[in-house]
Amino acid sequence: MNTSNSTLGRETAQVTALSKVLGRAQYAGDLKLPGMLHAKLLRSPYPHARIVRIDIAAARALPGVKAVLTGADAPRTPWGVSHKERRILADGLVRFAGEEVAAVAAATEEIARDALDLIEVEYEELPAILSPEEALDEEAPGVHPGRGNIAHEIRFERGDADAGFAAADLVHEATYTTHAQYPGYLEPMATLASIDADGRLLVQTSTQSVFLARARLAAALELPVSAIRVVQATTGGGFGGKIVEDDNQLVAGLLALRTGRPVRLVNNRLEDFLACCSSVPERITLKLGMARDGRILAKQVHIVAECGAYAGLSAEVMHVSAMRSDNMHRQGNVRSHATLVYTNNPPHGAFRGFGGTQMLFALNSHIHIMAEQLGLDPAEVHKLNAVQAGDVTVHGWKIGSAGLKECIDQATDAIDWRGKRARPRQALGARRRGVGMAAAMHVSGNRTMGNWDGSTVVVRIHEDGQVLVLSGECDMGQGAATMLSQIVAHELTLPLSQVRVAAPDTDSTPFAIGSLASRVTMAAGNAAIGAAQAARSKLLALAAVVLEAQVDDLELADGQVRVRGTDRAAGMAELARQHIWRHGGEGIQVSHTWDAQTQMHDAQLHGNIAPAYSFAAQAVEVEVDTETGQVLVLDSYVADDCGKALNPVAIHGQTNGATVQAMGWALYEQLHLEGGRLANGNFADYTMPTADAVPLLRGGFVESNDPNGPYGAKGASETAILPGAPAIANAVYDAIGVRICDLPITPEKILAALRARAEEGRHA
Amino acid sequence: MNTSNSTLGRETAQVTALSKVLGRAQYAGDLKLPGMLHAKLLRSPYPHARIVRIDIAAARALPGVKAVLTGADAPRTPWGVSHKERRILADGLVRFAGEEVAAVAAATEEIARDALDLIEVEYEELPAILSPEEALDEEAPGVHPGRGNIAHEIRFERGDADAGFAAADLVHEATYTTHAQYPGYLEPMATLASIDADGRLLVQTSTQSVFLARARLAAALELPVSAIRVVQATTGGGFGGKIVEDDNQLVAGLLALRTGRPVRLVNNRLEDFLACCSSVPERITLKLGMARDGRILAKQVHIVAECGAYAGLSAEVMHVSAMRSDNMHRQGNVRSHATLVYTNNPPHGAFRGFGGTQMLFALNSHIHIMAEQLGLDPAEVHKLNAVQAGDVTVHGWKIGSAGLKECIDQATDAIDWRGKRARPRQALGARRRGVGMAAAMHVSGNRTMGNWDGSTVVVRIHEDGQVLVLSGECDMGQGAATMLSQIVAHELTLPLSQVRVAAPDTDSTPFAIGSLASRVTMAAGNAAIGAAQAARSKLLALAAVVLEAQVDDLELADGQVRVRGTDRAAGMAELARQHIWRHGGEGIQVSHTWDAQTQMHDAQLHGNIAPAYSFAAQAVEVEVDTETGQVLVLDSYVADDCGKALNPVAIHGQTNGATVQAMGWALYEQLHLEGGRLANGNFADYTMPTADAVPLLRGGFVESNDPNGPYGAKGASETAILPGAPAIANAVYDAIGVRICDLPITPEKILAALRARAEEGRHA
Repeated sequence: MNTSNSTLGRETAQVTALSKVLGRAQYAGDLKLPGMLHAKLLRSPYPHARIVRIDIAAARALPGVKAVLTGADAPRTPWGVSHKERRILADGLVRFAGEEVAAVAAATEEIARDALDLIEVEYEELPAILSPEEALDEEAPGVHPGRGNIAHEIRFERGDADAGFAAADLVHEATYTTHAQYPGYLEPMATLASIDADGRLLVQTSTQSVFLARARLAAALELPVSAIRVVQATTGGGFGGKIVEDDNQLVAGLLALRTGRPVRLVNNRLEDFLACCSSVPERITLKLGMARDGRILAKQVHIVAECGAYAGLSAEVMHVSAMRSDNMHRQGNVRSHATLVYTNNPPHGAFRGFGGTQMLFALNSHIHIMAEQLGLDPAEVHKLNAVQAGDVTVHGWKIGSAGLKECIDQATDAIDWRGKRARPRQALGARRRGVGMAAAMHVSGNRTMGNWDGSTVVVRIHEDGQVLVLSGECDMGQGAATMLSQIVAHELTLPLSQVRVAAPDTDSTPFAIGSLASRVTMAAGNAAIGAAQAARSKLLALAAVVLEAQVDDLELADGQVRVRGTDRAAGMAELARQHIWRHGGEGIQVSHTWDAQTQMHDAQLHGNIAPAYSFAAQAVEVEVDTETGQVLVLDSYVADDCGKALNPVAIHGQTNGATVQAMGWALYEQLHLEGGRLANGNFADYTMPTADAVPLLRGGFVESNDPNGPYGAKGASETAILPGAPAIANAVYDAIGVRICDLPITPEKILAALRARAEEGRHA
Repeated sequence: MNTSNSTLGRETAQVTALSKVLGRAQYAGDLKLPGMLHAKLLRSPYPHARIVRIDIAAARALPGVKAVLTGADAPRTPWGVSHKERRILADGLVRFAGEEVAAVAAATEEIARDALDLIEVEYEELPAILSPEEALDEEAPGVHPGRGNIAHEIRFERGDADAGFAAADLVHEATYTTHAQYPGYLEPMATLASIDADGRLLVQTSTQSVFLARARLAAALELPVSAIRVVQATTGGGFGGKIVEDDNQLVAGLLALRTGRPVRLVNNRLEDFLACCSSVPERITLKLGMARDGRILAKQVHIVAECGAYAGLSAEVMHVSAMRSDNMHRQGNVRSHATLVYTNNPPHGAFRGFGGTQMLFALNSHIHIMAEQLGLDPAEVHKLNAVQAGDVTVHGWKIGSAGLKECIDQATDAIDWRGKRARPRQALGARRRGVGMAAAMHVSGNRTMGNWDGSTVVVRIHEDGQVLVLSGECDMGQGAATMLSQIVAHELTLPLSQVRVAAPDTDSTPFAIGSLASRVTMAAGNAAIGAAQAARSKLLALAAVVLEAQVDDLELADGQVRVRGTDRAAGMAELARQHIWRHGGEGIQVSHTWDAQTQMHDAQLHGNIAPAYSFAAQAVEVEVDTETGQVLVLDSYVADDCGKALNPVAIHGQTNGATVQAMGWALYEQLHLEGGRLANGNFADYTMPTADAVPLLRGGFVESNDPNGPYGAKGASETAILPGAPAIANAVYDAIGVRICDLPITPEKILAALRARAEEGRHA
């Protein structure tokens, strides 16, 4: 195949870039429809309260107000991912500060806001459970009455952990706490819901999955899925927060159904902080047993995770924390116990990395500690234990490709790991420098949503030879549309500009799970190869007739089918037209489904859940100011085993974004809850890293060429967030000899730790 | 197959009815987009003139005006169906009164109209050719300089016409003239054109074919087809006028491209009269040779047809006039010569019946005349000559089913043809009654658009068991969506409410030719059967696994798959879900293409162009007031050989509508051109039949069960318009002994003919 046009492996601008740069891209908040109403939500100011009375009369009477709904007006069916426990509008009880109490639709956003002020709610405040510790107190009242506060619990053991510990030369146990992170996408949640001519609900929305959104809307609004059409508007980031846990679409949909009018609900930033699930905070007690040479002989994990008032996807997140990192190392003895608890804090849930960040912070910190105690290089300890291609892990995962060791080498070499660790600690006044590294593993796909992890792609060739790709997988900015375009263009030997990807639409694009679990390049990428090859077969079969040649003598190159060794050729446009206009003709529109050859977890959580597993390692150098406690990341290198870099610049973009998001989690971002109420729901007080905090980020790839991946590729959007926090924590330790096990690593904690160490030194 | 749910053959309300009755249906004129502009067109007041100067400065300066375009701003590529000769906006020369000279887009329709008044155009009037006779004068200037005024010419002979005439017992020749009819749909042409985020042109429009519209937009706007997306808005009638000849979409598209804004162009009624193609007026000289027993031994046709200033589809229409009726009779000797001429009158083109009405008016009148001369019953003459199933006609058409004789019997019996013809002429004062009949033939599909006459249908089953049908064929009110729903529901044993048909959309629905040539029931109906059966196979294959049974032991009934003779069953929703959520799963989305096994005309116009041919006969009783000349249709019965009546009420609706449209053409409607300018472009002066002119219409079916038709069905939207005018003309003759060969049959003509006959009587 002639691939002179192919962009595969080449730095390729996002196909969505132009429309965004030109301001033409239509985000849900940009959409307008005639008669459109604007919605606003009244949220509970209390973390736990009984709604004694709601008086909406004054709000309803305000000119311009078209609907004021309360829990009494919402469907009775509770919604939720696994636990069906949430109402679109609270009915009688609010369980967190921010919970939706009433919804208004009005002629303007201003009127809707004014109407909120006219709604009188009398609350009877109830005792609130604001920490997992309180929740687990046997005397504690239930966040969900009658159900206890344990939302989910996992226990498993493989091999014999106790025997492993007994055999170990070093056993170390420590506790790590991780906090919740707000996804911080630039576009808050936004939906325009309307009723079409057939009375169906049309939901144009910012989402990571149109089909999961449709299913959730159907369940919560008590409608059949076919009565709903969800179309993805241009989406400005998701990071897990736009999978299935938000109320935005449901409220907009409910108001549209009740008013019969189009309803626009666009969160402002504070509303989005209140509405959105932040990542799951976990308290992880980790115990490892190591042989003298660094081999991990036993691992025991105890997790208490907090889902807040509603479980959402937190149970699934906790599963990942409890299990995934076990597969990164060759080991046989692991034991885990994880408990998810309800509190009256705002709900937590899916977030880029999906539980991996929490556990990998603990594990990477722990390995550094133990390596130091054993006099080993932690990078070498990781490599010694690293899982390898061909391995079947402790949980049954079949590792088709594994570039973890190469990632570790690449990252550590890049920052001169050995040299810098060997150098004498430099004192630059009060500032100290140190290096740290961490290793990580992630999935590319996940057979746990149901027993399917596939995707269907339709390829259609217009009569001018341009190609349209229909896929239900969502591009939130991560580059799904570019990836699909690249693959189809490559297979059909076309320039990228000759391929366009349609917006996901539950009516017109094929069923798809959506953009989560780093599954899209794997599942939809493979489906796109299959669909493009099916289109190619149709083109060749017809060209054989048109060019009076055998199919075997034909080649597709530069968008033309040629008879090899001759100048006889037929162009794609000509063939697309002729494919219709002949006896037995039809338009070229082919479909291909790819499904992962994986095995779902059994009841013992044993299986092979993903078609491929991706790896990464990060090495950083930091500078800690021992007077101010501030940590500055001086250098960062992430090596990503993405299998094959289909679009290097896109993966660098993902890696860099992930690195910064990890830095934010490690050092800067923190949701401040005061009595259960969010105190810093804005970008001034919730301090995401700004340009001055970020060094020139560096990174590279390890191309381990996965046997299941499209051209060897694996997912590359989440892995890179995983090693950031522990690499920084390890570097901080390397710089100042102080171990922070409780994220984020704030100046206050560093100064406190330095003071404590000084105290210890004095007492010693 | 259990068909207890099936609506096939049962009176079934249109699936589009509810949205229309509730006012929810969105016609193109109902659509609104943010920033939408309103367009208006300045049209030439002269039938032929040179544009000396256009001054648009004042119009452009009017506040609210966003664009004023003239021919200089339009693409240079001329557009047209076969003859590429028309500009979106006239460039230098106008060729008919009504031609588009300038287009305005403004903030409101009022401002756009005001702006038109501010455009100064200086014309140099040129001599105009206003009749075919003038056009064919050798001295006449060319409507299209340098090309002569003959737009198209057809000549053919089969057998030996001269020998046939020599052998005939009676030879009769006469000339018939037919006039142009305005399609008279309730919704004028309307388009909303906009530019999407990728810079593509989105055209939401009232149309009979989204794909033909796209192709024409691409050609005229000099864009690749893939840069354009056409979506059908709810369409309020087409009758051929919304296939491919109008300028509405092109002007809206051009203005949207030039302004970058959404542009709405909705014709008012006068504008629509000026913009739209009316049917092709033809002057037909017909010579028939008959044996004493009524057998047709030879036929000679000479047609002069007028296309007006631009050819559009008129050449194709004339082809039908010249050839189609030859196939209705068993005959071997036919000769035809047809000439299409340009004039400076407004363009003519496609119209329901597509050239059949013109020729069948002549032929049915002629057979009545000759039958009378031979002392035969014209109904018997038709039956004697009628083509029959199994015949191959003089032009090579293979007649798979033919209910013509049955149609004639049914219609004539219904009005007591023999009894009424035998009765003494009743004189009710000045009023006389008479009966007339006529026979007709049409196609169901037509392999002349290119060498394909197929259709592709996609069937998709939602996870709640509801079915979505994707087809690019347009419903303009004739019932395509209902037909597709009925078929898919029937095949899947579902209630009709469980099936929905998506709106045609060149991006998301499969390629389709569109709604013309009565092809949709045949082509898309057969494709729908295939797609539904493919979906059924998928359901059964999965059910065999789920129910642990052999596929052969399964039956689909009432939307469930059951193991025969047991109570084990799986519902459609369950199967649709399980079809995804398993190893190797995917959503049920299947595609099927059907293509007619027909043969395109060769250079000698020989072939078998349609998969089926439909027939009809009509018998009427009229009352003629000999004092006022007014004709009142007292009774009308149309028998339609539609193969199989899939939806009797829909076919009755088509038949009744066609009957009224034929009555309008025969008696009332006439476009009054004064010096080439339309004088009656409104429904007050262009008198379509109103309820008081229409009797209780009667009709019935002949179900000839075509071997190629879906369940035996053929097209049923056009045939019924064909026999109306000659049946009325024959009845008028029967009533008052006066033969009107020049449509319409106005009171003035009747009175003049009665006077002329009285004169003759006096002179005789």
